[in-house]
Amino acid sequence: VARGTATVLFNGMTDFHGVYPYLVSPVDSSGRVLGDVLGRLIDDLIAAGVHGLTPLGSTGEFAYLDRAQREAVVRATIAAARGRVPVVAGVASTATADAVAQARSYQELGADGILAILEAYFPLKDAQVESYFRAIADAVDIPVVLYTNPQFQRSDLSLDAIARLSEHPRIRYIKDASTNTGRLLSIMNRCGERISVFSASAHIPACVMLIGGVGWMAGPACLIPRESVKLYDLCRAGQWSEALALQRRLWRVNEVFARFNLAACIKAGLEFQGYPVGDPVSPQAALTADERRAVEAVLKEIGAASA
Amino acid sequence: VARGTATVLFNGMTDFHGVYPYLVSPVDSSGRVLGDVLGRLIDDLIAAGVHGLTPLGSTGEFAYLDRAQREAVVRATIAAARGRVPVVAGVASTATADAVAQARSYQELGADGILAILEAYFPLKDAQVESYFRAIADAVDIPVVLYTNPQFQRSDLSLDAIARLSEHPRIRYIKDASTNTGRLLSIMNRCGERISVFSASAHIPACVMLIGGVGWMAGPACLIPRESVKLYDLCRAGQWSEALALQRRLWRVNEVFARFNLAACIKAGLEFQGYPVGDPVSPQAALTADERRAVEAVLKEIGAASA
Amino acid sequence: VARGTATVLFNGMTDFHGVYPYLVSPVDSSGRVLGDVLGRLIDDLIAAGVHGLTPLGSTGEFAYLDRAQREAVVRATIAAARGRVPVVAGVASTATADAVAQARSYQELGADGILAILEAYFPLKDAQVESYFRAIADAVDIPVVLYTNPQFQRSDLSLDAIARLSEHPRIRYIKDASTNTGRLLSIMNRCGERISVFSASAHIPACVMLIGGVGWMAGPACLIPRESVKLYDLCRAGQWSEALALQRRLWRVNEVFARFNLAACIKAGLEFQGYPVGDPVSPQAALTADERRAVEAVLKEIGAASA
Amino acid sequence: VARGTATVLFNGMTDFHGVYPYLVSPVDSSGRVLGDVLGRLIDDLIAAGVHGLTPLGSTGEFAYLDRAQREAVVRATIAAARGRVPVVAGVASTATADAVAQARSYQELGADGILAILEAYFPLKDAQVESYFRAIADAVDIPVVLYTNPQFQRSDLSLDAIARLSEHPRIRYIKDASTNTGRLLSIMNRCGERISVFSASAHIPACVMLIGGVGWMAGPACLIPRESVKLYDLCRAGQWSEALALQRRLWRVNEVFARFNLAACIKAGLEFQGYPVGDPVSPQAALTADERRAVEAVLKEIGAASA
Repeated sequence: VARGTATVLFNGMTDFHGVYPYLVSPVDSSGRVLGDVLGRLIDDLIAAGVHGLTPLGSTGEFAYLDRAQREAVVRATIAAARGRVPVVAGVASTATADAVAQARSYQELGADGILAILEAYFPLKDAQVESYFRAIADAVDIPVVLYTNPQFQRSDLSLDAIARLSEHPRIRYIKDASTNTGRLLSIMNRCGERISVFSASAHIPACVMLIGGVGWMAGPACLIPRESVKLYDLCRAGQWSEALALQRRLWRVNEVFARFNLAACIKAGLEFQGYPVGDPVSPQAALTADERRAVEAVLKEIGAASA
Repeated sequence: VARGTATVLFNGMTDFHGVYPYLVSPVDSSGRVLGDVLGRLIDDLIAAGVHGLTPLGSTGEFAYLDRAQREAVVRATIAAARGRVPVVAGVASTATADAVAQARSYQELGADGILAILEAYFPLKDAQVESYFRAIADAVDIPVVLYTNPQFQRSDLSLDAIARLSEHPRIRYIKDASTNTGRLLSIMNRCGERISVFSASAHIPACVMLIGGVGWMAGPACLIPRESVKLYDLCRAGQWSEALALQRRLWRVNEVFARFNLAACIKAGLEFQGYPVGDPVSPQAALTADERRAVEAVLKEIGAASA
Repeated sequence: VARGTATVLFNGMTDFHGVYPYLVSPVDSSGRVLGDVLGRLIDDLIAAGVHGLTPLGSTGEFAYLDRAQREAVVRATIAAARGRVPVVAGVASTATADAVAQARSYQELGADGILAILEAYFPLKDAQVESYFRAIADAVDIPVVLYTNPQFQRSDLSLDAIARLSEHPRIRYIKDASTNTGRLLSIMNRCGERISVFSASAHIPACVMLIGGVGWMAGPACLIPRESVKLYDLCRAGQWSEALALQRRLWRVNEVFARFNLAACIKAGLEFQGYPVGDPVSPQAALTADERRAVEAVLKEIGAASA
Repeated sequence: VARGTATVLFNGMTDFHGVYPYLVSPVDSSGRVLGDVLGRLIDDLIAAGVHGLTPLGSTGEFAYLDRAQREAVVRATIAAARGRVPVVAGVASTATADAVAQARSYQELGADGILAILEAYFPLKDAQVESYFRAIADAVDIPVVLYTNPQFQRSDLSLDAIARLSEHPRIRYIKDASTNTGRLLSIMNRCGERISVFSASAHIPACVMLIGGVGWMAGPACLIPRESVKLYDLCRAGQWSEALALQRRLWRVNEVFARFNLAACIKAGLEFQGYPVGDPVSPQAALTADERRAVEAVLKEIGAASA
């Protein structure tokens, strides 16, 4: 699938929005990426109405896969998407040159956008953090989504750094996975039209939509794509009381998701729904039987026991 | 003013809601509480439409005042309120017996509710945390608002502890000053009607109202009472797009408030508006000239340069 | 006992050194300070050879006692010490004026030194932190020991602030309760003769003595005074291999102490040794039966089951 | 160089001890490992008397190098060492299978030991942490050094986990890079002969030697190998007062090292000494001119301005 096609279909550079599931990365015990099950999941997600796909986010275990595995995941996602929705591929590294190489290779594979993640070992100052994201954006022709997750990553983007980065023509979105919703409003107030904000599963998506967000990129949307799209539509239509009634029910998924290992939780839920996506990469543990039952109970309760 | 009067006027035990400014505690350099300026501020806040008053929150520098000063602040607030709006007085201690004594004395002075704060030095387990709040609620006949501020206090209330405490007939409200708005939705989902949620200045009030909050208790409402009440009314009326337009402007105050020492910031703003409330208790520093100008600029920008 | 006497006996301003037990504060359930049991403990500690006494440290639950209780503890300690060893009384507050008042009153009661503790609610900058300690030192004529415990207190002393404070003629000692022993060597390298360093129970006392420390102020010395003095003597004599053999055994006490609530742990041990010091102030919990047995087992093992 | 040879020379499995510099990884701007300058540095370090070499520690920027670069560093180190001292190579990953593959390949290249590092993204429980280290130790025939650095890594080894891992026949050493020296004594007390403890630059090496440590693995030893070996010899001889006099001077290097980015600092110092090791991997920044001068001043002061 050529990028050109995708651009025409969903207006490429100018408009990522809506529900972007953070895809899991199904990997068997020998390390082989299971493209077939990923493909079936993607077909079903698109049929359910999701607006885009995000391989190699936190839920996609980017931090546990080597270069070849990551590339296999991106390749399989783009192939399965067949240009029907944009694919925003996760690029993550501690080293600028490595991140640039990843970003270029994903663009060549046909990705429609880059989700840019900075991993850190030693602390970095704002100038270094900025230089990393800027180098990625300079290296590609497709939009870049800044991704910051202070809970798991060892660096954070200050408001000043975000404001400066938002001046870059290709840095057009941010996905903030802090739990601090007020920070999102500050980003919007500060950067205005220059940057659009996606929610993460740690925020209440309906609240982020209320303050001006454009959608969410999150693992739970793999499990409840229809309900997520419904929620998005209600928010877009300004039907806030209906949106909130639905949001309140769906929040149970985010809660259970926050309690367990993200990848283990989403993978367990997908197995329950009939997708043999396997366990998270070791030494991460699969959910225990009790934890699995908690996930299943929540899915049943909201009517999402099967895909 | 007898409590009975207040109860009749605003339905006492059954309904705290709306905008509750976290009052500053004006104290001169010799440590004397300035009841007159506090009284004038309170008159103006009530005239502006606030729904209640909260002396001795974080902004009220409870942590810096001794027993006599705290009592003077509560006494002055109740006297100035004259039963027109409920007064929810802050009780804070590391020791259960001390907190119980404070709560009883504030009830006797005529407080309509207690804002219960746990200070900790050594870490506490959930059972101890609960026993502290339960002892306060057992000691009074008026509603208790749990207050948790993980940013400044050394203990936190777990969701399980909140759920158990919400079974107490007098523990009827919670004010959460984390920045984690999703946590509020979890509290609501878990405790239902048993507990009502107030926002703090670290959350976006309109978002908390959207998910079912009943108002906010916060320092900035001292500076922008009219605008706060207007925002509350828009939220209650479900006029979300108007609410958000106003919220976006007012958020500037919360941002500046988060950047500086809370008490110093609100006191500086009130001085600028013509209330000689003085400086925060030493060794806290008053705002620098530059910081003061930043606060003043925000107030001018939103049309709140004078009371 | 007049301060003059004490000064003559142990050379007052010029030399605090050795083992200073952090005394517990025995308080009954009605809040009354039990001066008699405290007096007996002090007599036994002095008989065991300790070099000084420190009421109202962390172990002494300063954070849980009101002004009258604190004063009762200091008064009882000075009375029981009868000038035989110096008494260095803990002063702790969030507010400068309150700390100054405490320090002056303890000097008047006959304290030989002040252990200065800063409690913080809102974060403070270095200049404010310094102003607090400087105000205490300006207010008294006796030596001041800076006390910093980043584990429990919400402010810390930077190396730069310590260096500046060490220029004050009465700021002559520091007790650092971080676990970072290298920081102590940095303080010594930076401040030289101007400030002497006491260890806390979070450091290995023998290591602190090796690098140039002058002793330790710590809760466990209440339980093992003889062994502590023996360890101090071995260190002073440069008998490092004997010192380490003893240190290794005694470290068990510090380990158990770090695992439980400090005050609860030392109080439980003293009860076991025959001192009816009671429970820690509520909502702190007394040790459970299992925890109590762990403390007793350690005391038996090192031959300190009885006073 | 065959492992057999090395084993004979320094008693292989049974005795790692002394000063192990954490080698820098000289990499040019195109990502090529500069084996020649690394070789010259290694020759000089061995001539200065160091007891072993540790490529791919924190200072060696393991977190910034890809698989091929890491292997090139290990290969170059083993080649340059020529069996004269043991080479303990760093293995680091988030994924068990990847770590096992690294460890096996380094053993095949001739490494004499493995320094095992766990990187984490999502939090892990003790059982998972243990399974990771155990898998590495199961996969090789050479000794394994556990490495824990809570400052930069997102997982930590509990005392219980260390005790269980110490039962493994090949887990024979631990290098703890916390600043908590007391923790090392607890490890020694708990595990006894089963595990030997190396200090890191965050501890005072002389203190760790006093309590029973067997040496240190640290970046500063690249810059001051002779002085480090001298300090080690004094400690081993029990000449504590001479040791401390030297330790006090050398501590300046550790202080400056703690203040700046570790790799940038050691690389700047080596450049000053005449080794063109280049800059740290981007986006890490090289030291500024001022920072560089601070490093140079310390090296001059302790007489280590040239190699």
